[in-house]
Amino acid sequence: MAQFINSKETLVTEAIDGVLRTAKGRLARLDGFPHIKVVVRTDWDKSRVAVVSGGGSGHEPAHVGYVGEGMLTAAVCGDVFASPSVDAVLAGILAVSGSAGCLLIVKNYTGDRLNFGLAAERARAYGIKVSMVIVDDDIALPDLPQARGVAGTLFVHKISGALAEAGADLDTVCAAAKRVIKRVASIGMSLDTCTVPGSPKEDRIEAGKAELGLGIHGESGVELVDFSTASAAMKVVLERLKLHAGNGTKVALLNNLGGATPLEMAVLAEELAKSDIIEGIRYLVGPAPMMTSLDMRGFSVSLLPVENQELALLKSPVPLPDWPDCLELNTPEIYPIPDGLTPIKSIPSKNVQAAAFMTHCCKVFIASEVSLNRLDAQSGDGDTGSTLAGAARALKGVIGRLPLADITQLYRAIGLELSQTMGGSSGVLLAIFFSATGDAVSSGLSHVEALKAGLVRVQEVGGAELGDRTMIDSLTPALDALPQGFAAAAKAARMGADHTAEIVKAKAGRASYISQDRLVGHNDPGAEAVALLFESLV
Amino acid sequence: MAQFINSKETLVTEAIDGVLRTAKGRLARLDGFPHIKVVVRTDWDKSRVAVVSGGGSGHEPAHVGYVGEGMLTAAVCGDVFASPSVDAVLAGILAVSGSAGCLLIVKNYTGDRLNFGLAAERARAYGIKVSMVIVDDDIALPDLPQARGVAGTLFVHKISGALAEAGADLDTVCAAAKRVIKRVASIGMSLDTCTVPGSPKEDRIEAGKAELGLGIHGESGVELVDFSTASAAMKVVLERLKLHAGNGTKVALLNNLGGATPLEMAVLAEELAKSDIIEGIRYLVGPAPMMTSLDMRGFSVSLLPVENQELALLKSPVPLPDWPDCLELNTPEIYPIPDGLTPIKSIPSKNVQAAAFMTHCCKVFIASEVSLNRLDAQSGDGDTGSTLAGAARALKGVIGRLPLADITQLYRAIGLELSQTMGGSSGVLLAIFFSATGDAVSSGLSHVEALKAGLVRVQEVGGAELGDRTMIDSLTPALDALPQGFAAAAKAARMGADHTAEIVKAKAGRASYISQDRLVGHNDPGAEAVALLFESLV
Repeated sequence: MAQFINSKETLVTEAIDGVLRTAKGRLARLDGFPHIKVVVRTDWDKSRVAVVSGGGSGHEPAHVGYVGEGMLTAAVCGDVFASPSVDAVLAGILAVSGSAGCLLIVKNYTGDRLNFGLAAERARAYGIKVSMVIVDDDIALPDLPQARGVAGTLFVHKISGALAEAGADLDTVCAAAKRVIKRVASIGMSLDTCTVPGSPKEDRIEAGKAELGLGIHGESGVELVDFSTASAAMKVVLERLKLHAGNGTKVALLNNLGGATPLEMAVLAEELAKSDIIEGIRYLVGPAPMMTSLDMRGFSVSLLPVENQELALLKSPVPLPDWPDCLELNTPEIYPIPDGLTPIKSIPSKNVQAAAFMTHCCKVFIASEVSLNRLDAQSGDGDTGSTLAGAARALKGVIGRLPLADITQLYRAIGLELSQTMGGSSGVLLAIFFSATGDAVSSGLSHVEALKAGLVRVQEVGGAELGDRTMIDSLTPALDALPQGFAAAAKAARMGADHTAEIVKAKAGRASYISQDRLVGHNDPGAEAVALLFESLV
Repeated sequence: MAQFINSKETLVTEAIDGVLRTAKGRLARLDGFPHIKVVVRTDWDKSRVAVVSGGGSGHEPAHVGYVGEGMLTAAVCGDVFASPSVDAVLAGILAVSGSAGCLLIVKNYTGDRLNFGLAAERARAYGIKVSMVIVDDDIALPDLPQARGVAGTLFVHKISGALAEAGADLDTVCAAAKRVIKRVASIGMSLDTCTVPGSPKEDRIEAGKAELGLGIHGESGVELVDFSTASAAMKVVLERLKLHAGNGTKVALLNNLGGATPLEMAVLAEELAKSDIIEGIRYLVGPAPMMTSLDMRGFSVSLLPVENQELALLKSPVPLPDWPDCLELNTPEIYPIPDGLTPIKSIPSKNVQAAAFMTHCCKVFIASEVSLNRLDAQSGDGDTGSTLAGAARALKGVIGRLPLADITQLYRAIGLELSQTMGGSSGVLLAIFFSATGDAVSSGLSHVEALKAGLVRVQEVGGAELGDRTMIDSLTPALDALPQGFAAAAKAARMGADHTAEIVKAKAGRASYISQDRLVGHNDPGAEAVALLFESLV
């Protein structure tokens, strides 16, 4: 699978610079690319406890996305899935730590423990107070004391960061981090592996299966489970987390491992919200990509039973778009459907002249069915005649129920009837033509001007203009000539319709997909129908 | 490709409810699932112009993610890649439109034009002022007047929404939208197609190729181009956009089509920022998924030459996490590397006794190389002896350069030497042990207590505890007994080392991956090394 990168060697440094491009005044990086990849807050005066995290890259937005007011003071980045060096971590610590000291938040992987651990020692040799906590929230391997650190780390970032921002001392911040680590539990599920830059994609999960209990570095899941639906998937995950849930209020964090779509994540959020497997889940962080595993199509749920102060720290706002806020879970709010969806039935009224005119028009279209179909077969699918004849028959059948004496209502009623009986785009466009004409009449325009206004609306919606080989090519000149009588209108319509036979490039409608050779010499059937109608009215 | 959904029929309604679960007081939906899928602002009093958009789903966060203060008043959602019905659009218009009227922002697809167009007519029949604009920003097909509407639509949402929020009237809002539409241009590139729920994935892009000028509904790109790097990809896209760039200040919108990782998007942002192909790109929206095409691994760039008022409207803050803000493009800010990365060289000093002690210890490890390797072969990769002997040889060679007269500095210097000469985890752990011991000595602890403090730090970083079959199992009892003399310490170390042969389940280090049968009866080589050392000191 190709990726939008230049080389795997420059991937992380280029990505960091990409992030910094729009972070003026908010973020900076230390010099020392490519060996030292450290991003720091610029609004930092070292007066409070620094909170530093990091690790291998490939988990974006973690960790750079969480550097800022109220969360991390610095992020130390390694290459993709590789721990940063001791020097890089030390540079990060030295850059942001003052006399208040520094908390290192490390995910439980050997490389990170060692490199962050040794960097901490070196910093201590300079007299800097450094504490380190190891996050091991993964519950996939219940018997292994060395559980991995995954998305539950975000809780530690947020709570420590908020405390440090508020001015708590290092011991307090460190103790709070350790309390969170003790109780947070996470587990993930994936339908596909991730694509590591520069490595071939491993295709190890067969159809109908999912990996449960995966890490965030492409390592295999602990179990291969059956996969059917989002509902069943969330059920499995929550059943596992239930063993670690405890009592009281809980916050869930729903993490996109990278490749699930927002639609899928929203469905999973809905399943989580409506599940009764674990009691007391009252708040949700996400769904969002927070601790990803490159493009892995999977999700994880982290669960934290919260104390009161923790909840306040989790909910305190931060100006970081990648932190999706800790929000209360609720039932969706539903408003009633507004009145007016069912169109008001018009009151029938009599008008002999209008009835006769309409009947005449309908008969013209019914009579032209075969010839218009034949014409349409040259440039389309040969059904223009039948479509118009069908609509005409339907309209003819309801003439007695129409408000014939009220011209505004009559146009609207015809539009409504056509939208309900005539299929396809042409039904909608004619419905718009008649409805808009009715509106225009009611606003005081003359009959002809109102018809023109209707046509403008059709063009607006349909997108066709004069010369695009549509019915507009005959209807526009006909309406322009109509004040001079039906004869003039008919003549103009005929000229317009015949001109369509010379238009070699259709720009709208189905004919736009047809080769030019097939179009030449044949009138557009819609334009021809308009001409036939006006000719019949002379 | 399996997906985290329950069924394609319920996908969109469940996803909308999922979004609403955490939107209390901010968003609601209209009743009428599944036919009517409309999400509205709850803080809306109809006193200003309503801005309504929507279309098929599968483009998340568009359009629901942009409903809120300063952007959309309502989003009308269809099923995946399918236009919403006339009734659904009408319900949306009626729910939010007051006497100030309503602007419909529609992407240029026939279904959307027709359904939004007819709904507008129906709403007008109720006396509601409705204007409609059609966004056609795609420049992939330069000769087709019916260009598609893609991610440039976001500019229209933001500028219209900000104007409407500020109280502008419908004509002003509509005119501003049309001005944006006239100038905005977009083009996208993709390395893979999207996975439409319920349909098999189409595998049409071969390796080394990319589709340029794609739509957002899985339709093929206009051209198949060669793909090499992110840099070349961005160059092709910007060259196309240049034809539409005009003069003056421009805002670029960098959209993730769904499946590109944040790392890739950040690299593309960097390429866009540093390119000089188009002059005047001073602001960037994104990179972020804004108008996606499900999980398509691709991106699009939209370009808007902005007038002054438009820039202010684009930059005005909105409380919508899915709108990534319009931020100034800058050169990344770089801080110098902090002092202290290069460890201070300790000043050599003399101490005959210390030199003799160290030389003795080094000789013990050098002499034990073969036997310890043999022991390690039982549970690991057979190199413990060589690793320790190598470190011992290196240390022995630098004894003359060490600060032998200053015990604090000596421990730290040994730690530094080991971290630089001894590979692997054990080198880092021993470095931490000696550095931390030095710190503890300097803080006033007794020699033995300081060594214990060093061991605590090693356990913290390494994660091993007593009984985990590591060197800790002999070093801990040895240090406990050390106040009673070397003989007592040696005896305790031996007992501890021999006990490791009975530990069947290693919990840390490489031996934790080995089957239990292979471990029984063999001492852990690290623990054995400690025992040998203390025995040699008696």
